Amino acid sequence: MSKPIVTLTSDFGQSDSYAGTMKGVILGLCPEATLVDICHEIHPQAVRQAAYVLSTAIPYFPPGTIHLVVVDPGVGSRRRPIVVQSGRALYVAPDNGVLSLALSQDPARLAIHLTESAHRLSRISATFHGRDIFAPAAAHLASGTAPSQMGSPIPLSDLRALPTFEPQLQTDGTWLGEILHIDHFGNLITSFHAPEPQAPISVTVADQRIEQLSRTFADVAPGELVAYVGSGGYLEIALRNGNAARRLGLSVGEPIQVAGLS
Amino acid sequence: MSKPIVTLTSDFGQSDSYAGTMKGVILGLCPEATLVDICHEIHPQAVRQAAYVLSTAIPYFPPGTIHLVVVDPGVGSRRRPIVVQSGRALYVAPDNGVLSLALSQDPARLAIHLTESAHRLSRISATFHGRDIFAPAAAHLASGTAPSQMGSPIPLSDLRALPTFEPQLQTDGTWLGEILHIDHFGNLITSFHAPEPQAPISVTVADQRIEQLSRTFADVAPGELVAYVGSGGYLEIALRNGNAARRLGLSVGEPIQVAGLS
Amino acid sequence: MSKPIVTLTSDFGQSDSYAGTMKGVILGLCPEATLVDICHEIHPQAVRQAAYVLSTAIPYFPPGTIHLVVVDPGVGSRRRPIVVQSGRALYVAPDNGVLSLALSQDPARLAIHLTESAHRLSRISATFHGRDIFAPAAAHLASGTAPSQMGSPIPLSDLRALPTFEPQLQTDGTWLGEILHIDHFGNLITSFHAPEPQAPISVTVADQRIEQLSRTFADVAPGELVAYVGSGGYLEIALRNGNAARRLGLSVGEPIQVAGLS
Repeated sequence: MSKPIVTLTSDFGQSDSYAGTMKGVILGLCPEATLVDICHEIHPQAVRQAAYVLSTAIPYFPPGTIHLVVVDPGVGSRRRPIVVQSGRALYVAPDNGVLSLALSQDPARLAIHLTESAHRLSRISATFHGRDIFAPAAAHLASGTAPSQMGSPIPLSDLRALPTFEPQLQTDGTWLGEILHIDHFGNLITSFHAPEPQAPISVTVADQRIEQLSRTFADVAPGELVAYVGSGGYLEIALRNGNAARRLGLSVGEPIQVAGLS
Repeated sequence: MSKPIVTLTSDFGQSDSYAGTMKGVILGLCPEATLVDICHEIHPQAVRQAAYVLSTAIPYFPPGTIHLVVVDPGVGSRRRPIVVQSGRALYVAPDNGVLSLALSQDPARLAIHLTESAHRLSRISATFHGRDIFAPAAAHLASGTAPSQMGSPIPLSDLRALPTFEPQLQTDGTWLGEILHIDHFGNLITSFHAPEPQAPISVTVADQRIEQLSRTFADVAPGELVAYVGSGGYLEIALRNGNAARRLGLSVGEPIQVAGLS
Repeated sequence: MSKPIVTLTSDFGQSDSYAGTMKGVILGLCPEATLVDICHEIHPQAVRQAAYVLSTAIPYFPPGTIHLVVVDPGVGSRRRPIVVQSGRALYVAPDNGVLSLALSQDPARLAIHLTESAHRLSRISATFHGRDIFAPAAAHLASGTAPSQMGSPIPLSDLRALPTFEPQLQTDGTWLGEILHIDHFGNLITSFHAPEPQAPISVTVADQRIEQLSRTFADVAPGELVAYVGSGGYLEIALRNGNAARRLGLSVGEPIQVAGLS
């Protein structure tokens, strides 16, 4: 059998020992685990952004990978710590919707409310469940413990979901979506998923109109805006050799209008 | 035997090859080592902050872990490179006090001044002992070399310590401590260690008074200040769903006053 | 045989899943690979900076290491994806000059234009060849596939090079170089390679003149500028216990004048 892979996604940043401490806990319980950081720079408590970033990485990890996700504004309150098993992967996270985009691509088969004290550290803090509850659960899964042994089942329909990311049809026939994420390059990832690559659409953002869908950055001149289907399958807007978010002064959540979609 | 774990803590940041280069050196000498970053975003040359961040991670790594710590304002001068063996772990660091908080929890049993050229790279630069001295020493420990073979013993009482982190009793019966660290969320970690969770204390910081100790963030309303015992065992102050350091305009080292401590 | 090591260098930053996704691809194809980040904070599309940062790490990795480098302003255009085999290492990168400094120290023996679809993901995006082409190629090399099986040979003289980094002799007998990189501490790494450590030189930068070459930071008083041969073999300028780039207001590419070089 291959060595188990455990990925880590959080809003812990890089300036503390938080992510490293979770890794110490995992390796103490499962020394053969291979640990992979997906992202620790999710904006503090930005569950929706975490859901997006996670969903773009999931399809590229081998089957059986364990994804540990700790973006947890409700730490210490009543939100449930859960394990979810899908066709492809195992997830350990707070039940706050952070898994909803990943599970829309890779549906849940089983969800467990993590309640067994045998799969937690012996002392549970009120503020760092990543270390005390989630990391040990991921390590026990990596060691071969079945999710069903780790707590009580939750009906799949009871899992928390996030408000929809779907664009809305307007009365004038255009669609209104939003900026889902802004990446390190300032590219705008929008909530329009997988438009046809040759669709005759136009995109309006911050009063700028982009008249067509291109294939890649190099299809426009340096300094020009370009709309294209990004590597995660979403409509994206970039500035060739520049930073679109900074040029346009835009943030996550701002509206994007698309005309010409069938 | 388990694979050896080597952790890395430094002020090297992420924008150079410094941490990666140390990992290349370690894997060249000990290919089976498992490498774990604790933190590379210690403020440049902030030995005291590094001591704190390191101490919060140490208890969560398995026994026998090797902790490599390179925050080294004195690189190229006479400060000693050392290996310290405690009951729980091995440490490789400059002898500048950076281990003092970790060793206050996990006392040193043996300290060695690293002098053997066999455990260094063949060419030693004057400015990057992390690569040339500390990383090779950690790799030799990971390969099973005993600390005693790597140099000459240092009396434990000769190890450099940092000025005390202990709060001081004031004439009015309150205690004066300081901000030890500000984390990625803007939470203030103070120098008050492990107050009783139910202690009837009040905390004053930047002219704001917090009247009681809570258990976790969710015990106060969003936007309110909350004092609680953090996951590292220190008194912390946070702003629920916000950034306390930014709201209060505070930095590391600023005073914290606590009343009601017995 | 040792486990294969794959290093990663990119301009992907830390706030997305891009680097993590490449790791998922690699581990899916070669589960026994050991992954090491060299740097993901290369400035967006800064091929020249990436060439420098990479070159400083290469000599410290064991022979046979596979270096995956994705700084790729031409993604989606006609620039070639390549594998280069040198005496010491294997490189996977776009053919845009990013390997030129590394190869000046460790010459290429074989270069291959990556054309075999068997060594790519089944769907190739137009914007993320790091995931779809470069990471799978690195994983196939790590699994033992020979470079010659992965595409067609390129004459070594056809590989793209960057404009020279060499300082130029001026009519007044001084040499004019430039700032190649500014590190996390604000130290200025210049394009002067390996001056004699005792050379009687003086260095002029931003109208400040440094009269001699020192061995290390501690050779000058705190707050003073110091010139020394850095750990990568280049002339560097630092501010002891401070940030030289910020103090002098300097950026990458600005001129450095050296007098007294023979």
